[in-house]
Amino acid sequence: MKFARLGAIGAETPAIMDGRTYYSLAGLTPDLDPDFWSSDGPARAAAALAAGELPELDAVNLRIGAPITRPSSVFCIGLNYAGHAAESGSEPPLAPILFQKAANTVSGPNDAVPIPIGSTKTDWEVELGVVIGTRASYLDSPSDALSHIAGFVAVNDLSERTFQLEASGGQWSKGKSCAGFCPTGPYLATPDEVDAGDLRLRSWVNGEPRQDSTTQDLIFDVATIIHDLSQYLVLEPGDLICTGTPEGVALSGRFPYLKAGDVVEVEVAGLGRQRQEFVMT
Amino acid sequence: MKFARLGAIGAETPAIMDGRTYYSLAGLTPDLDPDFWSSDGPARAAAALAAGELPELDAVNLRIGAPITRPSSVFCIGLNYAGHAAESGSEPPLAPILFQKAANTVSGPNDAVPIPIGSTKTDWEVELGVVIGTRASYLDSPSDALSHIAGFVAVNDLSERTFQLEASGGQWSKGKSCAGFCPTGPYLATPDEVDAGDLRLRSWVNGEPRQDSTTQDLIFDVATIIHDLSQYLVLEPGDLICTGTPEGVALSGRFPYLKAGDVVEVEVAGLGRQRQEFVMT
Repeated sequence: MKFARLGAIGAETPAIMDGRTYYSLAGLTPDLDPDFWSSDGPARAAAALAAGELPELDAVNLRIGAPITRPSSVFCIGLNYAGHAAESGSEPPLAPILFQKAANTVSGPNDAVPIPIGSTKTDWEVELGVVIGTRASYLDSPSDALSHIAGFVAVNDLSERTFQLEASGGQWSKGKSCAGFCPTGPYLATPDEVDAGDLRLRSWVNGEPRQDSTTQDLIFDVATIIHDLSQYLVLEPGDLICTGTPEGVALSGRFPYLKAGDVVEVEVAGLGRQRQEFVMT
Repeated sequence: MKFARLGAIGAETPAIMDGRTYYSLAGLTPDLDPDFWSSDGPARAAAALAAGELPELDAVNLRIGAPITRPSSVFCIGLNYAGHAAESGSEPPLAPILFQKAANTVSGPNDAVPIPIGSTKTDWEVELGVVIGTRASYLDSPSDALSHIAGFVAVNDLSERTFQLEASGGQWSKGKSCAGFCPTGPYLATPDEVDAGDLRLRSWVNGEPRQDSTTQDLIFDVATIIHDLSQYLVLEPGDLICTGTPEGVALSGRFPYLKAGDVVEVEVAGLGRQRQEFVMT
């Protein structure tokens, strides 16, 4: 199944997608929120769809929001592709590197993104995002992780490299938490829809290719990440985990950073494509 | 004014304190949540109290919760006292160092804290906490920050030093986000109640003194921190900012780390005292 949220910012309607048709879930759930994921919402939505109980939603001219409400936390894994670690001047990590983005960075996949005031190094990062379905703490093994996943999303883990690397004593959050810096969606696909270990990830700037890799190249795969994080913290329903980006970002020195007027597209196979125009703040 | 939340975890009643007496705000607001802080809740509560409209709340035998609901984000400032930077083996920072704790770490000031499985270096950190009252983005100056503050709280920014410094490539979140690692309260004091620039902070382990400093020694004061963060991200109502800890933690090598059975107390003058028993997970 695929889930989406359509409508103006803060007034999105939860929906299930069937092919190109959206059906409203407004009669079933207030939103695609932690309660929905943790209370078998996807199965209830599928049953309601099969029973013909869901009204069709006219999506024409509706904005596409992030397919999840604001998470309790946005967790990110750093340097999780060998090629990106190398272009960043770092060794591949020995364990998943955890950092966080402010939860209010989550935004629609096609929303315009303001270049932060003072930014000279705004950079893209296509990533596979994982949405947690049920609380996870001290999991016994990576194989236990899979039952805690609500689904997968495309994410652009936007980054301001000066803020990230030079303005905060080496702690990355300052360069990861700017307004609009976590475009998410266009939809969430449940785990049966995709093979998370074999998804092509690509990004473009003004139509020119930048990143082109696959989740086969993840140093730590989804199950390993969830198992690892669960040893240190409690994952909550609706939490978003950004699993890391492959090589091909501006930080490599091979491409210019973003400026107002640029258009970034990111795509994860099976999870849709995003398109952001960058604008002056 | 002072605000508190009393009752079982997840079922706290919002209250205003008048001396040693609590009055229920349940008829005025669902909770001490972002809407309360951003919609003049404290002024409305004070008016209701003055008008005799609030029922007294029998607090005997009630657990004291954190005086805020789960924040959108918990932001922390690192190495913000020169003495603590020195005992951590670091230079004083040139700008506020931002890192984050998972938002679900916020817990009651006297709740028992589990020692994380595998932990050998669980450490205390008494801090002045700031709760944001209204959205803050790109503030013009530090003096503009003060009007965005809902109030101040005592915080114990608990830390697992191996997880923080060795398990995550130098990014600190893994050692800051364990369950129960952000005891907050016992109450929130509005800005008129305290001089945030001159508050004594102290901590004890099993009754023995550990930290004893004052917010006069902050490298970056509250207004500077809020102004600085607002240049990089959007502060939301209800967000918690932990402003840093003074010297006297176990990381210094002068004291043993915490083990099950230990009792930590932290106190910020004017903001009350916390008491946590540490237990096996």
